[in-house]
Amino acid sequence: MRRGLVLLLVLGALAAWLVGAGLAPVDHGIDQRSFAQAPGVTEATARWVRQVAGAEPLRPNIVIILADDLGYGDLAIQGSGAIETPHMDRLAEQGMRLSQFYASAPICSPSRAGLLTGRYPLRSGITTALQAADDTLLRKLTYRLGTLFAKLGAADLAGGGSAVTGLPASEITLAEALQLARYRTMAIGKWHLGDFTGLPEYHPSNHGFDRFVGFNMSNDDWPVAFWRDRNEIVADIGLDQARYTALFTQEAVRFIEESAGTPFFLYLAHKDPHQPFFASEAFAGRSAAGPYGDAVSELDWSVGEVIAALQRAGVAENTLVVVTSDNGPWFEGSPGGLRGRKGQSYEGGFRVPFIAWWPGQIPAQSVSDVPGMNIDLFPTLLALAGLAPPSDRVIDGVDLWAVLSGRQSELPERALFFFHDYDVEAIRVGRWKYIDRNSHYVWPAPLDKSDTPAGRILTGRDYRPPGSSSSVATLGSWPLLYDLDRDREEAYNVGESHPGRVRDLSARLEAWRAAFRENPRGWHPPGGER
Amino acid sequence: MRRGLVLLLVLGALAAWLVGAGLAPVDHGIDQRSFAQAPGVTEATARWVRQVAGAEPLRPNIVIILADDLGYGDLAIQGSGAIETPHMDRLAEQGMRLSQFYASAPICSPSRAGLLTGRYPLRSGITTALQAADDTLLRKLTYRLGTLFAKLGAADLAGGGSAVTGLPASEITLAEALQLARYRTMAIGKWHLGDFTGLPEYHPSNHGFDRFVGFNMSNDDWPVAFWRDRNEIVADIGLDQARYTALFTQEAVRFIEESAGTPFFLYLAHKDPHQPFFASEAFAGRSAAGPYGDAVSELDWSVGEVIAALQRAGVAENTLVVVTSDNGPWFEGSPGGLRGRKGQSYEGGFRVPFIAWWPGQIPAQSVSDVPGMNIDLFPTLLALAGLAPPSDRVIDGVDLWAVLSGRQSELPERALFFFHDYDVEAIRVGRWKYIDRNSHYVWPAPLDKSDTPAGRILTGRDYRPPGSSSSVATLGSWPLLYDLDRDREEAYNVGESHPGRVRDLSARLEAWRAAFRENPRGWHPPGGER
Repeated sequence: MRRGLVLLLVLGALAAWLVGAGLAPVDHGIDQRSFAQAPGVTEATARWVRQVAGAEPLRPNIVIILADDLGYGDLAIQGSGAIETPHMDRLAEQGMRLSQFYASAPICSPSRAGLLTGRYPLRSGITTALQAADDTLLRKLTYRLGTLFAKLGAADLAGGGSAVTGLPASEITLAEALQLARYRTMAIGKWHLGDFTGLPEYHPSNHGFDRFVGFNMSNDDWPVAFWRDRNEIVADIGLDQARYTALFTQEAVRFIEESAGTPFFLYLAHKDPHQPFFASEAFAGRSAAGPYGDAVSELDWSVGEVIAALQRAGVAENTLVVVTSDNGPWFEGSPGGLRGRKGQSYEGGFRVPFIAWWPGQIPAQSVSDVPGMNIDLFPTLLALAGLAPPSDRVIDGVDLWAVLSGRQSELPERALFFFHDYDVEAIRVGRWKYIDRNSHYVWPAPLDKSDTPAGRILTGRDYRPPGSSSSVATLGSWPLLYDLDRDREEAYNVGESHPGRVRDLSARLEAWRAAFRENPRGWHPPGGER
Repeated sequence: MRRGLVLLLVLGALAAWLVGAGLAPVDHGIDQRSFAQAPGVTEATARWVRQVAGAEPLRPNIVIILADDLGYGDLAIQGSGAIETPHMDRLAEQGMRLSQFYASAPICSPSRAGLLTGRYPLRSGITTALQAADDTLLRKLTYRLGTLFAKLGAADLAGGGSAVTGLPASEITLAEALQLARYRTMAIGKWHLGDFTGLPEYHPSNHGFDRFVGFNMSNDDWPVAFWRDRNEIVADIGLDQARYTALFTQEAVRFIEESAGTPFFLYLAHKDPHQPFFASEAFAGRSAAGPYGDAVSELDWSVGEVIAALQRAGVAENTLVVVTSDNGPWFEGSPGGLRGRKGQSYEGGFRVPFIAWWPGQIPAQSVSDVPGMNIDLFPTLLALAGLAPPSDRVIDGVDLWAVLSGRQSELPERALFFFHDYDVEAIRVGRWKYIDRNSHYVWPAPLDKSDTPAGRILTGRDYRPPGSSSSVATLGSWPLLYDLDRDREEAYNVGESHPGRVRDLSARLEAWRAAFRENPRGWHPPGGER
């Protein structure tokens, strides 16, 4: 009896220690208070976006069709031998593809935050897939224990965590900016920038969208609620997702028809082909690539319907359509022979299809290898709408219009940064991609060390001297430098042959990291007005 | 004081439980005694290999050049844009490539066992990378605790383990068989089929090789001893590996020169490009693919030197040269756009380059997509030497000569099985690859669940019904069926669209698994003579 009590106490203390270690705040080097919410800040920040005087802007209608977990190689025109995508292929043939276009994160929520704000996602505090507001206690606990589990090697129990529960009101979204230019705005489909079911401040209508039809989180986060504008129509659609793509398409068509007289911005964020895969009856079982392929086929159909609606409404000549994906493919789907998948800093996690279509403005049948990222859409589209980017904050993206319009085949050299969670771990400049020694790959699942630089990569330099009988040394030829022109698979670390380039990129990464940690939210002046 | 003692006792009991669980024998469903060594058994088994009467055999000299961790995409002729491999390219242009050739395991030791015995590696009890005989206590303990750690999710601490410490004497190697056909035999380079430094019964000379120059284990297993025949020349060469490739090449050339009058078999198992990467001064820093590329370049040079020696010796017209790899690329190297890497059941782990060269006998500039595996070399080469395969045991490989000689473009349909550790987990028949629900991927490192079927792959079927607010279900649309003709990246599970094929392949896998577990060593009659 006494011994049982002691045992219980000891185990209890052990458990408390484990839990305590897990719950201890993780120091990300960022002042969490910088993400604090301030009601009404949205309107206050609006003044930082200005109409540009002078030349008449083109003011096209804007349609962004964002696929979910669509891989670089999943379109026929991108090389798929298994999925037919006639509508997206035709769009590409009538427009421009960017062959080196990146998501701003290799996972859903931060990538979407980057796309809508024009800023690296960490600036808004969104670094991982956001969690549902009413998540289970078990999941919350697991999530909190993530860092500890990761340290113990049980990385599949690790979750990571964002600094915020949704997109801060202090961010200016593309929709908010376009509202200032008197665009009608609508978001359809997946949101995943804050679970407004429990936290209403994150509803799309608080982020610049006049209209909304869709769901709160990801299509694999229960409960999957279904909302129309500010009304919850169904609390949990559960398995009933097969009608979603058709429904979203119908809503998109209606919005286009209703908006024909005024500039509009449609953000159509499909669930496809994120798992679970639900295609409607017309598509289920029809592709040669299983349920994933069916989902891509239905997505492709939807793209065709949207284009047809634009043509019927007579606005096709004045509408810019962009099709892209939020990150690389997850368990299923093709990264097009690139290394890595969703959740990894390799190209397969970040590089996504990108098609821009605007008859008469974007040259047909064109492909550009100018590197871009979805943070570029914000400044590009604001300029087309006659707006200057906000002046109170860093905008990390650049205006791609000179390339998309075919006027320029190159842009000034720039650095693109690749984030994982709270840190930047890679930089690309020109053909060179540099991955830092401090890289960490703890999200979203235990990563294959044979597929990440966190594993053992050994060169002579890192070995113990002759005579040692110890087992192999750990870690190795850090950092990693890849020549993407020669080596699109990121198979060969060429850092040793290019010490100067390593020094340069390392210094740029470090400088940028330091500046970023100093002022992560990128306010002008630092720490000043917001 | 009293409490301290109780705490110590409790923690001690906990530790004992942990260790005990780890040390408990793992039931692999195989009688471990079947791998027992019997001195002299080698000679006894020899009688099972018979000279074939009748037609005069071709009896070519045989050279197998086995690369270590060379990826499917690492040769220029296989698509590499970063490494120049003129010698292997020329060999391929003058001979035949098999585009669908597999190693018999995705890791070193078992793949080599399969190549040398013509049998799936598990038949010889070799399922993981064999461990050094005098390994450290810590590593031994970790190794023993591997299964427990894997179960706890800390898979990077897991080692797995083979049923044996080296290739059993009861196995008949290619070298032993060819000795019976009066071939001179020599092994050069990496052995890794038992650490003969501590366990002399595993020395190559006990497995059919008249001559040996090379090292005991892998080039990243300390100590890396250097041996010439039965003599240990250096106990640990440590970092001094840069001379190895040149030295092995020189030995190969000498053996060819000395053997010109009699049929010979040369098994040249290079260290390249296994990490750590050591190229000699002539190659270090010369490739555009870093230290890995330098190692591949030197390997390529060596191939050129061997061919030149054959030509100088006037035996090129009577020599069959095979170049292949023991498994896919590890941390560095290109799987040629295939999914997965070393250690995984995806194609990137198993599929390797394969070149066969024999002027006048193998048609030049030919590529065959007939699936093959390195277990096929044993029956193919025995037949060429005028030998029937052993009659007392299952030989899993098939004779590929009809294809290699260009007489047939197809072979009868066959099933190829893919092992991980103690179990078969995948089967390929024709264009279809089926991966079983029981798949496990615990070696050699924590695997990326987003890159293995062991992760969450969800379809509607696996979801909880509407109304549930639980978090996502785990696991999903097992088993996996890939159509390799359409989907070389194994991106799309098409099992749902092909239920009949799934049933058929599942039944074949189960039947084969059952037969295998009944008689893993494949003796005829079961359990009978050896």
